[in-house]
Amino acid sequence: MVLEEISLKTRFNTVRNQSLAICQPLTPEDHVVQPVVDVSPPKWHLGHTTWFFETFILVPYAEHYQCFDDNYSYLFNSYYETVGARVIRTDRGNMTRPSVRDILRYREHVDEALEKFLDGELAPNQLNLIELGLQHEQQHQELLLYDIKYILGNNPLFPEYLPGLKHLHCEQRKAESLEIPEGIYSIGYDKEGFYFDNERGVHKVYLHGCKIEDRLITNGEYLEFMFDGGYEDFRHWLSEGWDWVNTNQIKGPFHWHQSEGEWMVYSLRGGLRPVELNEPVTHISFFEADAYAKWRKKRLLTEFEWEVACNQFGNIDDHSNFSERESFAPNPALPNQNQLFGDVWEWTSSAYRPYPFYEAPEGAVGEYNGKFMVNQMVLRGGSCATSNTHIRATYRNFFHPHLRWMFSGIRLASDL
Amino acid sequence: MVLEEISLKTRFNTVRNQSLAICQPLTPEDHVVQPVVDVSPPKWHLGHTTWFFETFILVPYAEHYQCFDDNYSYLFNSYYETVGARVIRTDRGNMTRPSVRDILRYREHVDEALEKFLDGELAPNQLNLIELGLQHEQQHQELLLYDIKYILGNNPLFPEYLPGLKHLHCEQRKAESLEIPEGIYSIGYDKEGFYFDNERGVHKVYLHGCKIEDRLITNGEYLEFMFDGGYEDFRHWLSEGWDWVNTNQIKGPFHWHQSEGEWMVYSLRGGLRPVELNEPVTHISFFEADAYAKWRKKRLLTEFEWEVACNQFGNIDDHSNFSERESFAPNPALPNQNQLFGDVWEWTSSAYRPYPFYEAPEGAVGEYNGKFMVNQMVLRGGSCATSNTHIRATYRNFFHPHLRWMFSGIRLASDL
Amino acid sequence: MVLEEISLKTRFNTVRNQSLAICQPLTPEDHVVQPVVDVSPPKWHLGHTTWFFETFILVPYAEHYQCFDDNYSYLFNSYYETVGARVIRTDRGNMTRPSVRDILRYREHVDEALEKFLDGELAPNQLNLIELGLQHEQQHQELLLYDIKYILGNNPLFPEYLPGLKHLHCEQRKAESLEIPEGIYSIGYDKEGFYFDNERGVHKVYLHGCKIEDRLITNGEYLEFMFDGGYEDFRHWLSEGWDWVNTNQIKGPFHWHQSEGEWMVYSLRGGLRPVELNEPVTHISFFEADAYAKWRKKRLLTEFEWEVACNQFGNIDDHSNFSERESFAPNPALPNQNQLFGDVWEWTSSAYRPYPFYEAPEGAVGEYNGKFMVNQMVLRGGSCATSNTHIRATYRNFFHPHLRWMFSGIRLASDL
Amino acid sequence: MVLEEISLKTRFNTVRNQSLAICQPLTPEDHVVQPVVDVSPPKWHLGHTTWFFETFILVPYAEHYQCFDDNYSYLFNSYYETVGARVIRTDRGNMTRPSVRDILRYREHVDEALEKFLDGELAPNQLNLIELGLQHEQQHQELLLYDIKYILGNNPLFPEYLPGLKHLHCEQRKAESLEIPEGIYSIGYDKEGFYFDNERGVHKVYLHGCKIEDRLITNGEYLEFMFDGGYEDFRHWLSEGWDWVNTNQIKGPFHWHQSEGEWMVYSLRGGLRPVELNEPVTHISFFEADAYAKWRKKRLLTEFEWEVACNQFGNIDDHSNFSERESFAPNPALPNQNQLFGDVWEWTSSAYRPYPFYEAPEGAVGEYNGKFMVNQMVLRGGSCATSNTHIRATYRNFFHPHLRWMFSGIRLASDL
Repeated sequence: MVLEEISLKTRFNTVRNQSLAICQPLTPEDHVVQPVVDVSPPKWHLGHTTWFFETFILVPYAEHYQCFDDNYSYLFNSYYETVGARVIRTDRGNMTRPSVRDILRYREHVDEALEKFLDGELAPNQLNLIELGLQHEQQHQELLLYDIKYILGNNPLFPEYLPGLKHLHCEQRKAESLEIPEGIYSIGYDKEGFYFDNERGVHKVYLHGCKIEDRLITNGEYLEFMFDGGYEDFRHWLSEGWDWVNTNQIKGPFHWHQSEGEWMVYSLRGGLRPVELNEPVTHISFFEADAYAKWRKKRLLTEFEWEVACNQFGNIDDHSNFSERESFAPNPALPNQNQLFGDVWEWTSSAYRPYPFYEAPEGAVGEYNGKFMVNQMVLRGGSCATSNTHIRATYRNFFHPHLRWMFSGIRLASDL
Repeated sequence: MVLEEISLKTRFNTVRNQSLAICQPLTPEDHVVQPVVDVSPPKWHLGHTTWFFETFILVPYAEHYQCFDDNYSYLFNSYYETVGARVIRTDRGNMTRPSVRDILRYREHVDEALEKFLDGELAPNQLNLIELGLQHEQQHQELLLYDIKYILGNNPLFPEYLPGLKHLHCEQRKAESLEIPEGIYSIGYDKEGFYFDNERGVHKVYLHGCKIEDRLITNGEYLEFMFDGGYEDFRHWLSEGWDWVNTNQIKGPFHWHQSEGEWMVYSLRGGLRPVELNEPVTHISFFEADAYAKWRKKRLLTEFEWEVACNQFGNIDDHSNFSERESFAPNPALPNQNQLFGDVWEWTSSAYRPYPFYEAPEGAVGEYNGKFMVNQMVLRGGSCATSNTHIRATYRNFFHPHLRWMFSGIRLASDL
Repeated sequence: MVLEEISLKTRFNTVRNQSLAICQPLTPEDHVVQPVVDVSPPKWHLGHTTWFFETFILVPYAEHYQCFDDNYSYLFNSYYETVGARVIRTDRGNMTRPSVRDILRYREHVDEALEKFLDGELAPNQLNLIELGLQHEQQHQELLLYDIKYILGNNPLFPEYLPGLKHLHCEQRKAESLEIPEGIYSIGYDKEGFYFDNERGVHKVYLHGCKIEDRLITNGEYLEFMFDGGYEDFRHWLSEGWDWVNTNQIKGPFHWHQSEGEWMVYSLRGGLRPVELNEPVTHISFFEADAYAKWRKKRLLTEFEWEVACNQFGNIDDHSNFSERESFAPNPALPNQNQLFGDVWEWTSSAYRPYPFYEAPEGAVGEYNGKFMVNQMVLRGGSCATSNTHIRATYRNFFHPHLRWMFSGIRLASDL
Repeated sequence: MVLEEISLKTRFNTVRNQSLAICQPLTPEDHVVQPVVDVSPPKWHLGHTTWFFETFILVPYAEHYQCFDDNYSYLFNSYYETVGARVIRTDRGNMTRPSVRDILRYREHVDEALEKFLDGELAPNQLNLIELGLQHEQQHQELLLYDIKYILGNNPLFPEYLPGLKHLHCEQRKAESLEIPEGIYSIGYDKEGFYFDNERGVHKVYLHGCKIEDRLITNGEYLEFMFDGGYEDFRHWLSEGWDWVNTNQIKGPFHWHQSEGEWMVYSLRGGLRPVELNEPVTHISFFEADAYAKWRKKRLLTEFEWEVACNQFGNIDDHSNFSERESFAPNPALPNQNQLFGDVWEWTSSAYRPYPFYEAPEGAVGEYNGKFMVNQMVLRGGSCATSNTHIRATYRNFFHPHLRWMFSGIRLASDL
C-alpha cells in the first residue's frame, strides 16, 4: 500500500470535513436519538469516528498526546471487545451528553493532534491505520445518511433533510442482458491500494455462466409485484421472510407510505413525495429482493457473478458521488449506464462467509469484519450515499436479511 | 371556586414561566430523549402543557383562534382517548422535531392568545379549566424534574443540573410519636378553591388509632436495612417486590451508585456526591418502603391516617418550595418540623381506588384521574419538587408500586 | 379451634379422595401441561398438595417417617421461599416425570403415614397444620377445575370433561334491591373454627349505606353490553383494562367462542354449547366487571359491603357444592336465592390489602397470604367449584385484575 | 426412480414400525410436552408423519378413503402453508388430546388404507410421494430421538430412556490427515434412487485443496478448549456467537452438567454419567464448532470439501444404524474408520443456500427444503440416530447456528 504523505493530509481533511457537512443541516436535537437498535445517533457517529483515530493511532503512537476526555473511550466504542467496556447499544440514544458542541470540540482536538502527527515520519503500519480510519469514517458517513433518513422519515412531520430540487424525470429504459460465460474466474482483491480484510483470499471459482440484466429493478416494476399480491402470497417467500412480513405487517418498501390510495416515498431531499416509477426501487430487505426475483421466475446474482460482471462491464465513472449530485434518491439508468456502481447496494444470493485463505488480522482491527460472517447476506456495488473513493468491484458489504434502512435494491439474473 | 381575574393573569404567567425556568439549564439535546417509558422528553412536557391550553380552552372557546400547527395535536396528546390519535408513548423519545425552538414559539403563540382571552369575560367553567391547566402544568413541572434527573443521572458523565451549593449539614433528630386517637373522621376536600376529582367524595372513615413518627426515615436508617441484608432476605418482601428485586438486581435506592465501597448519590444539584446520612431517604419504590417497614416491625400509614395526621399536625409553611430553596434533595428535618408537607412523597399502605360517591367528570377531563385507579398505591404530602401552591392535605398522588424515579420516601406508624 | 380427632380422619380421607375424583376423568396426557403460567399441570396439584403434608407435618413431627423421594421436595414446592429451591413456574409443564402413576404412589405413601400419625396424640399446632393442609387442598381442588377447564377448553377438539347432563332451564328473574344502612360494622373472622390469616384483624369500618342487587349479572345482560359496543368504547374502561382489551383482542368472556355468528361457551360438562342467557356470566376479569358496572352507571360492592350483606342476607345452604350438583356452570338464581354463596366469585371494588392489626404468621405458612397483598383485587362468595366446607362470609379470595380463568362474576350496587 | 412394489410394502411397514419402536419406552406423559419451540411432542411426530401420508397420498389418490378425523389436518400440519391452517408451533405442547391411544388408532387407520393402496397399480409420482413420505418419517424418527433426549434430559430426575449397557471403552486414536487435491469437482446427486430437491442442481465447484482430519473431535479435546477458557474469550467467537454464549450463560455442550467439579453428560442410554473422553463431542452449536476450530487455528470444511472427501474416503458400512447398536452416544473411532458416515452430523462452514440450477418442486412438497435456505448452516454425514437407509454423501442437513439439541459435532480441516 503506497500513500503519499502530502495527499494523505488533504485526504484526511476532506474526509473529516465531509462528516461535518453531512450533519450540518441537522438540529442539535436530531443528533441524539436512536429510534431502533440498528440506527445510531448522528452525534455518536461524529464521536465514534474520532475515537477510532484517538484510540488506534494517537494513544499508541503520538508522543505527548493528551486524551480529550477519558470517559469518551467508554462512550464511543462501538463493538471492539479488545478495547474494553462500552455503552450498551440500545442505550446510545439516551446519552444527551456530551453535547454536539462538545463532540465538535473533541473532533478539533483530535484533528489537530493528527495533523501534527502526519507531519512526522510515519511507519507503514501507521499509514495503513490512518487509511483504515478514513475508510471507516467513510463507512460511517454512509450510515449517517441512512440513520438521518430513518430519524427524519420516522417523524410524523416528515421534515426535509435538504430542500428538494426540481425533479429529474427519465424515460423507462428496457432492460437488456449482459452475458457471463461459463468458466473459472478469480475473485478478490489483488491490486495496490486499500482493501478490507474480507476481500482478501484471492481464489478461483467455477461459474456456470449466466445472463444478468443491465439495470436495476425500478419502482414501477416493484409496484407490479405489490399489485399482484406479492406480499400476501407465501409461495414467493422464504419461511423466515414470510414470518417477517406478517409479524411486521409489511406492505411495501421502507420509507413508503400509503396516503389516500397513492404510494408516497420519504426522500432526504424533498421529504414526502409521490413514488417515481422509473427510479430504482430501494429500501427493501433481502427477503423482499428474493421474493421479487422468485415472482419474476428469475434469481439474484451470486456475489461472484456480480464481481465478474463488474470487472467486465462496470464503470466507476457511472457512479455519481453523493456529494456531487442533486438527489439522494437512486438514479434512473441513463442509456449508457448499467448501474453496477452506485445508486443502490445490490442484494446478492450469497451468504456472507470468509473467502478461502481468509485470516482476520491480529488485535482490535481484526474485529472489523470477520466476526460478522454469519447470518448476513452480501451486497455489492455501493449506493448513491457511498463516496466514489470508497467503492470497488471487490467490495463486500453485508446486512442481515431483514434489514432495509440502507439504500438496497435488486438486479436479476437467469441461467444460460 | 373564586378566582380574581387580575391575579389569574399573574398566576398564569408565573406558572408558565416556571416551566421555562426549569428547562433553562438544559442543552437542546437534553430535551429529546426518553430513556424509559415512564420518562418523557422535557420538550414534550413543554409542548404537552401548551397543547392542554390550546385544546381545552382556545380551540373550543377563543374566537378566531388559529391553531399553531395541526400536527401538534397528534404529537402532544398524552393519553386523552377522547381527543384522538397520539404518538405511542415509547416513540416520544424519537421525535427530534419539532425542535425546542419551535416548541418555544408554540408556547409564545398560545400564551399570547390566552392572555388576550383572559381579558374577556370568562364563564365559571372556563375559569375552572384554566385553573386545571395551571395545576396540570404544575404537575408536569414536578415530572420534568424527575425526568431531567433520570436523563442526567443515567448518563455516565453525571452532569450537574445546577451547580451544587454548599452542603447544609443537619444533626440527626430522634423520631418522636404523634398520636391519632380512635374514632370516625371525615376524609376528602370540602373547602373553596381548586381540587382534583379524586379528592371528591367527602366521606367518613373509622380509624382504630395509631402512633406515627414525626419525621421521615433517613438515609442512615435505610443504610442499616441494606447492611443488614435487607435486599437479600425474601421474608421482608411482597412476592412481586421480591421478583422485582431479583429481576432488576436492585441493591439500593434509585440514583444510588456504589463506588469503591462507598455509596454515592446523584443529585440535581451537585451531581454525584456521598450519601448524606441525615437526609430523608428518597427514590425508593413502594416495595422497598413496605419491606423496610416490615424489617422495622412497623407499618406504613394508610392514606386516611396520613390525612388525619396532616389535618392535625401538618403545616404548609414547613414546606419549602423548590424554587426558593437551595437544594433539590429532601431536607433534613428541622427540630420544629414534622415533614408532612414537602421533602418527599410518602408511600401509604392504601391502594389507589375511588372514594365513595366518586364520579369522573364528563368528557376529556374525566380521563384525568379515574381511569388510573387500579394497581397503583397512594402517596401523600408533596416533595421538594412540588410547588407550595400545588399541595394540600387531601391531595392524592399515585404511582405503580415498582416506580421510584420520583421523590418518594417512608414514614412509619404503629398501632396504639 | 376445636377439632375432634375421629372426625378429622374421616375429613382427611374425604378431602384427599376428592382430589383423585376430580382427576379421574382425565387421561394421563391431560395431567402434564401448563398452557399459560397461571395454570398448573393437574399432576403437579396432586403432588404439591401431598408435598404440603409431607413437608409441614410428617417431616417435622412424624417419628421414623421416610421421605418418598428427596427430589419431590424440589419438584412440588410452589412458592415457599422458606423451604428452598423449586422448579421455576414456567417449567412445570415440561416435567413429564414423575408420571401420574408415581404421584399416585406418592399420595398413598403420605396418606398412609398421615393416617398413622392421626392415631397419635396431636398437639394443637399439629391439628391446625393438618386443617391448613386440608383447606389448602380444597383450594387446589378449585384450581384443578379451573386448570382442567383451561387445558381442555384450549384444545381445538373441545373435549368434554364429564358428559353433559340435560339442560336445566330457568326463567329470567328480575333483580331486586337489598339495602345496607349507613353505620359502623365489624369486619373479619371472630368465631371458632378454621380461618385464613388474611381474615384476621377484626376491625370496624364505616359504611355510608348502599343498595345491592339480589342476584348476579346474567349472560344475557352481559351480551347487551357486548352488543352495545362495550369492548370498543374506551370510556367504560380503566386505562390498564383498555390496554389489556386491545393487546389481547378481547371480544367477550373467556371460554366464549364466536361460531357462525352465534356465541358459544365451553363447559366442563357438555363441551362447546350455546350461551345460556339466564346463567350468571362468568370467566370475566376485574377490568370487564368494572367496565360493565360503569356502563350500567352502577358500581361493584366493596369487600366490606359484601361481607355485611352476606352476614345479613347470605345463606350457606343456597350454595350447592360442586360434588352434588349436575353442572359446573353457575346456576341461574332460584326465586328464593340471592346467590351470595357459590355460583361465581364476585369481584369487589376492594384492592387486596392487609386488615388493620394483620400480622403474618411465623415461618413458611406465613407465606400463605400476606406476601400477595399488592396489585390484586378481592373476590367474595365462592363459586360452583368451591366446596361448601371451604367457604364463609369472611373468606377473602384474590386475583390480579386481568385474570379470568376462574369462575368470576358480577354483582352491582349503588349508593343510597 | 425404480421401486419394486413388493419391497415397498415391506419397507413401508419397517419404517412405520420403527416410529412406534422409538416411542415404546415412553410413558403417555412423555409424549405431550414441548419444552422449547424447536422440540415437538413425540405424539405430534406420530400424528404428523401419518398426516403426511393421509394428506398427500390417501386423500388425493385413494378411492373411497375416509378421513380418520377432519380436525387432525389442522392439528398435525407442521409448516405447509399450501395445506391451510395449523396449530401455531408454540402451542403444540399444550394439546393433550388426541391422546396417544387415539393417535395410534389414527396410525392403524392410515396404515391399513395405505397397504391396500399399495396393492393397486401405482403411478410413478405416487411411488415418489410414498418414498418421500418414508424419508420424511425417517427424518422425524431422528428428530424424535433429539426431542425425547431434550424432554428427559431436561427433567431433574434424569430418567433413562433405555437401560444403559456396559460401557464400550476405546483407546484415543491419533488424528491423521486425508488430502483433497486442488481441482474442479462435481457436486450434487446424479444417481438412481431417492434424493431431496436440495441435492439437485449437479454443478462444478473449484476447490483449492485441503487436508482434513480422519476423525471427529473428541470430548477430551473439547474439554481442553473449555479448560483453556474458550467460553470466556471473545476472540474465538463470531459476534452473534459471543452474544449467544453470554445471554444463555453457556459453559459447555448441551446435555453436559457440572456436578461437584466433574462434567457429567446425559445419555439416552444410561442417564447421567461421566463424560467419556474418547467419544466424539456432540450437542454443540455451529458457534461452538467455529470457535473451537479458530482456537485450534484450523477451520471447518466447506460442504463441498466434505462431499468430495466423502466420495473419496467415506464408507457407508462404517455407519452403524442406531437400531443395531448398543448406544446412542457417538462412537469412538475404530482404527479403520474415518467417521464420515454416522456418529454425529458435522457442522460445515457453508451457509445453506440453493445450488445453481435449483428449482423447488411445485405444490406443497415444494415447501420441503427451499424455503428454509437462509440463516442456516449445512451439516453433513448423518448421526448415530440416522437410519443407514436415509443417508448418502450428497445429503444436506441444515440447522440454525445456535441450535444443538441434535447430534452435531466437529471435524477440522486446513489449507494445503
